Amino acid sequence: MPDYNKIVAVIGGNRCSAEVAQLSEEVGRELAKQGAILICGGMGGVMEAACRGACSEGGLTIGILPGDKAQAANPYVQIPIVTGMGYARNIIVVKSARAVIAIDGSYGTLSEISYALQNDIPVIGLNTWSLANNGKQDNSIIIAESASEAVNKALALAFNK
Amino acid sequence: MPDYNKIVAVIGGNRCSAEVAQLSEEVGRELAKQGAILICGGMGGVMEAACRGACSEGGLTIGILPGDKAQAANPYVQIPIVTGMGYARNIIVVKSARAVIAIDGSYGTLSEISYALQNDIPVIGLNTWSLANNGKQDNSIIIAESASEAVNKALALAFNK
Amino acid sequence: MPDYNKIVAVIGGNRCSAEVAQLSEEVGRELAKQGAILICGGMGGVMEAACRGACSEGGLTIGILPGDKAQAANPYVQIPIVTGMGYARNIIVVKSARAVIAIDGSYGTLSEISYALQNDIPVIGLNTWSLANNGKQDNSIIIAESASEAVNKALALAFNK
Amino acid sequence: MPDYNKIVAVIGGNRCSAEVAQLSEEVGRELAKQGAILICGGMGGVMEAACRGACSEGGLTIGILPGDKAQAANPYVQIPIVTGMGYARNIIVVKSARAVIAIDGSYGTLSEISYALQNDIPVIGLNTWSLANNGKQDNSIIIAESASEAVNKALALAFNK
Repeated sequence: MPDYNKIVAVIGGNRCSAEVAQLSEEVGRELAKQGAILICGGMGGVMEAACRGACSEGGLTIGILPGDKAQAANPYVQIPIVTGMGYARNIIVVKSARAVIAIDGSYGTLSEISYALQNDIPVIGLNTWSLANNGKQDNSIIIAESASEAVNKALALAFNK
Repeated sequence: MPDYNKIVAVIGGNRCSAEVAQLSEEVGRELAKQGAILICGGMGGVMEAACRGACSEGGLTIGILPGDKAQAANPYVQIPIVTGMGYARNIIVVKSARAVIAIDGSYGTLSEISYALQNDIPVIGLNTWSLANNGKQDNSIIIAESASEAVNKALALAFNK
Repeated sequence: MPDYNKIVAVIGGNRCSAEVAQLSEEVGRELAKQGAILICGGMGGVMEAACRGACSEGGLTIGILPGDKAQAANPYVQIPIVTGMGYARNIIVVKSARAVIAIDGSYGTLSEISYALQNDIPVIGLNTWSLANNGKQDNSIIIAESASEAVNKALALAFNK
Repeated sequence: MPDYNKIVAVIGGNRCSAEVAQLSEEVGRELAKQGAILICGGMGGVMEAACRGACSEGGLTIGILPGDKAQAANPYVQIPIVTGMGYARNIIVVKSARAVIAIDGSYGTLSEISYALQNDIPVIGLNTWSLANNGKQDNSIIIAESASEAVNKALALAFNK
């Protein structure tokens, strides 16, 4: 039985390159191996690859969907949560997680990173955004160089909460 | 492993009488026995009793929380989804379900019944609201007289979707 | 200059009969005459007719839109607020108002009535829903028989808040 | 009468330095002078200063509030919209605007910048975030050096939409 306190979000674009998909799948696999539950936005690209990886290791996957239909979830979402709220659902993805792994991604991903940092939820970044505020580098996003490093850092931080 | 297409919402007040709590617990138990996943607003009263019932039979429970903290969920919520959106989260509870069982409840429950009917999600009622529009009785809420009748009707309707 | 504490919501269906449209327009006109600001869901039917009435008397109209485009507002919405949140926007319509006038309407309107009553915002009803909870009539919706009676009651109650 | 197509968002922190407040007030004044309506999150800091500036020039101000009470708005918000949705309201602030002026700010502001860029709404930045994606500078935020430059750029871009 999964440990329901180990919910980790994986965020990233609805479309992505084959390379990013592979990285995302690895993240999903590693999360499942370590007993974490994966939460995401439920759609394609990074989200789908991560869910596929988690399922391949028997993990549990939750998708917080922007639209009105559970059927719009990628096929590896086991628990589709239907919000009908469009991108306002982004805040739910991160608030429900103990840690967030950001992979690549565009402005939607950036909104999720922002919400996580605003809520003191640790963000691990793999090839994603970097930030500067008023000319000063902001190092809040914790850089990882590999899927397993990202997952290890996320779980270590999630448990310290 | 639960059948993730059998998500059923249980809605009702955050506080309730001992009698209503017993009915709610029975609904939760029966849902779990029949392999359904229970989704609810994650708080006390009807929601807590239903989750307790589901857990006692090994069922899976999801709570869509209004506040900012997973810890605010009742202790029988296995998957806490944190929205931070207050009662705007009501629409997510019902949209994520294939059928809704309404037990007792006040205006928050009525908003959930409304959203379900608006979205053509069947609503089974146990000692709950009844409606008339412009002087004409509205019989959209399907009446049940017992927990098991409610669950049987809900699952029959959910599967017809 | 309008009195910005006199925000009153008009709620009702996105489509309505010619008779209901006339009643809604009268409500909008009367609100504007008495210096109230009209807030609504910004779409057609009752909402459009009420906004048209308010505009014809120089009133201010706000539409809380479900979709992603300001252009989807009816042509009498002066201030379009774009939520992109679908029917989750219903709660914003009522929470922003000091009183709510419900005209006719279906389940979306019922969700708004529910939210208003949950938030202790007075609801005046014109040919709309009536409620019973657990077999007992609920008289929280204040009945009005004409547009001017509805507006007078709404403003009297709004000012007592 | 204000031109209701000229809604411009001013975003920034709920607290700010005296210097940033002065800049924000100037932005508000300039927006009002040019006939724009100011929309913001309705709270303190940058939002309050900008609303104060707009009011001092007879402009119209709208606050999209995170909480449950219109009374929580800063005293220069003329039209308080009450969402009760916490920071999920950020997306409404930007979606309702034709252009966004970001002044200083922290992660909440960054979430609003993200949503604006995701929705192709132009963002003008005054001493605010700068972004890089995957190591590549992202120049989507249009830099301004003064309040009047920010407002001129915002209105020019808003009208091109």
